[in-house]
Amino acid sequence: MTQYKGLMDKLTKFNEERQRLNEVVSHYAKSGMKKFLHLDHITYEAGSLDKRTKEMLGLVSSLVLRCDDCILYHLTQCLQLGITPGEILEVLEVGLLVGGSITIPHIRRAIDVMDQSIKK
Amino acid sequence: MTQYKGLMDKLTKFNEERQRLNEVVSHYAKSGMKKFLHLDHITYEAGSLDKRTKEMLGLVSSLVLRCDDCILYHLTQCLQLGITPGEILEVLEVGLLVGGSITIPHIRRAIDVMDQSIKK
Amino acid sequence: MTQYKGLMDKLTKFNEERQRLNEVVSHYAKSGMKKFLHLDHITYEAGSLDKRTKEMLGLVSSLVLRCDDCILYHLTQCLQLGITPGEILEVLEVGLLVGGSITIPHIRRAIDVMDQSIKK
Amino acid sequence: MTQYKGLMDKLTKFNEERQRLNEVVSHYAKSGMKKFLHLDHITYEAGSLDKRTKEMLGLVSSLVLRCDDCILYHLTQCLQLGITPGEILEVLEVGLLVGGSITIPHIRRAIDVMDQSIKK
Amino acid sequence: MTQYKGLMDKLTKFNEERQRLNEVVSHYAKSGMKKFLHLDHITYEAGSLDKRTKEMLGLVSSLVLRCDDCILYHLTQCLQLGITPGEILEVLEVGLLVGGSITIPHIRRAIDVMDQSIKK
Amino acid sequence: MTQYKGLMDKLTKFNEERQRLNEVVSHYAKSGMKKFLHLDHITYEAGSLDKRTKEMLGLVSSLVLRCDDCILYHLTQCLQLGITPGEILEVLEVGLLVGGSITIPHIRRAIDVMDQSIKK
Repeated sequence: MTQYKGLMDKLTKFNEERQRLNEVVSHYAKSGMKKFLHLDHITYEAGSLDKRTKEMLGLVSSLVLRCDDCILYHLTQCLQLGITPGEILEVLEVGLLVGGSITIPHIRRAIDVMDQSIKK
Repeated sequence: MTQYKGLMDKLTKFNEERQRLNEVVSHYAKSGMKKFLHLDHITYEAGSLDKRTKEMLGLVSSLVLRCDDCILYHLTQCLQLGITPGEILEVLEVGLLVGGSITIPHIRRAIDVMDQSIKK
Repeated sequence: MTQYKGLMDKLTKFNEERQRLNEVVSHYAKSGMKKFLHLDHITYEAGSLDKRTKEMLGLVSSLVLRCDDCILYHLTQCLQLGITPGEILEVLEVGLLVGGSITIPHIRRAIDVMDQSIKK
Repeated sequence: MTQYKGLMDKLTKFNEERQRLNEVVSHYAKSGMKKFLHLDHITYEAGSLDKRTKEMLGLVSSLVLRCDDCILYHLTQCLQLGITPGEILEVLEVGLLVGGSITIPHIRRAIDVMDQSIKK
Repeated sequence: MTQYKGLMDKLTKFNEERQRLNEVVSHYAKSGMKKFLHLDHITYEAGSLDKRTKEMLGLVSSLVLRCDDCILYHLTQCLQLGITPGEILEVLEVGLLVGGSITIPHIRRAIDVMDQSIKK
Repeated sequence: MTQYKGLMDKLTKFNEERQRLNEVVSHYAKSGMKKFLHLDHITYEAGSLDKRTKEMLGLVSSLVLRCDDCILYHLTQCLQLGITPGEILEVLEVGLLVGGSITIPHIRRAIDVMDQSIKK
């Protein structure tokens, strides 16, 4: 019970810090960086592929490139879009196979976040 | 016209060489490597996610990790499963955004293979 | 003296958290992930190569791929197998040369853990 | 105001810990590692290229390889050499383009450090 | 003498193939990919930093991420902007130090191209 | 039979080209690059660890970082030091597990070279 609270606090802090940093970036970013950040936003919008598929693509890419912040972000998006734990596990499974055991620490943390999020 | 023929020859050669090398690997692989190769095979089978989604996950992972052989393999699988050029382009778009301009040479070669494959 | 205690606390926490997370993973892992984790386990068992050599291979791979959790795990295994600090230093030296100065922050933390572990 | 203080404390701690770890490394490093660390030092000295350009090369390399400690170190060096925020932003912009959105979390933290450092 | 001719043929072929592939990409690219490719173009234009510095940043990034096509492209740009062999060597030196001996095969090929280009 | 000849020709060409390129590098390399290349040489000399172990460390590092030239070089060194195919296979097995399926194309080519070399 304490653990759950601890993780949710961690997630809340992560989101608040992310928000704060995005404002700092916004203040300094020049035209090129702004264009990139806008592109980052629209790339995950539905097109020939739906948002669900795109967020899963974002999640597996973040996993094989081993970026915890990116994994956490796309994982949260996936859960909000109603992608099920069983589906997320299979995304992680592909990433683990392609990226190898070096991804395991990230998979541990991702599943922990998922576990706590679905217990809310 | 010649170019098309050239690329298809390249694809045929790629597949033949891949086949030959797999036999060499088969001859030497010990139990652990055999288990890994088997796992590589079953990971892309339909489960909570269908084969189409899994092959797109394999494609984007291969792109951000920048492995031409792997991209070529998953791209061919995607095309055989009926994933459309428009959908493949969006998979590559996510990979390009996440992985950056360093992926562009691989994207060029992937789109070239796709272009020639759908002209058959 | 305080520093030593601080680091050992950190190691103990790392192991406890790793244990907790492994249980969460265990709960959710499907057949494919379970097979991978089992493979992860048996790959380091003695075969043509002894366990010592395999753990050193795991350590240098973790270093050049720059994963602190993986480095810490294999480093601990190496020390438990009686691999000497002099030998570990040469494993890190190969990793530093191959992987470049980008590995230095990980080498710093690895040597710190080794230093404290052998002072126990 | 508190935030600024928090970050500067973080920077101070980072430098103190870096200093402590360098002493531990110094104690254990064999001849090969010592030679590498010396080479790391002299590579950024002025030659055909001035120190400013070399530190910017170090910064962009650290960004595309995604090592926070290395980014923080070269960023601090850049600021001390009088490289302007506008110039640093363009270094980060090249790194973001080449390395992709996976570098964004590092860019956020880098700009935050820069922001706080120039407010001193 | 034959070697020189061989390499220049290789460079000419590389540029022709790159041109052909860019046209194929152009034909298929959707809006997001087009925006990225445009951004790729404008990121290296002079701003707070001049084109020379930006191309050197592109070169070192390509080296530590180990992409031959990207190295070749930025190296050619550097030479056209009048960056001297002595300066290019120092860019490669930073990349070698940061990225490690794994970059050596790329450095060999880069210096070979530079050698032949300046002998023209 | 023809295949064997083809591969040995490829190996011979690889070594001749490597030799030629090393001479070009030698001609241009400044003091820092020369020091690095010297360090690359002495790092694999026997110390606390013997040459055999160090070459296996070099091989697995090259595999997880996925550099064919580096793999080929260390594999040849391993074979010359009398490391058996069974031992090499286990080095590759660790690399495959840690680095994931993305290393498979490199493993295929490595085993092919080993196969042909031991048939000589």
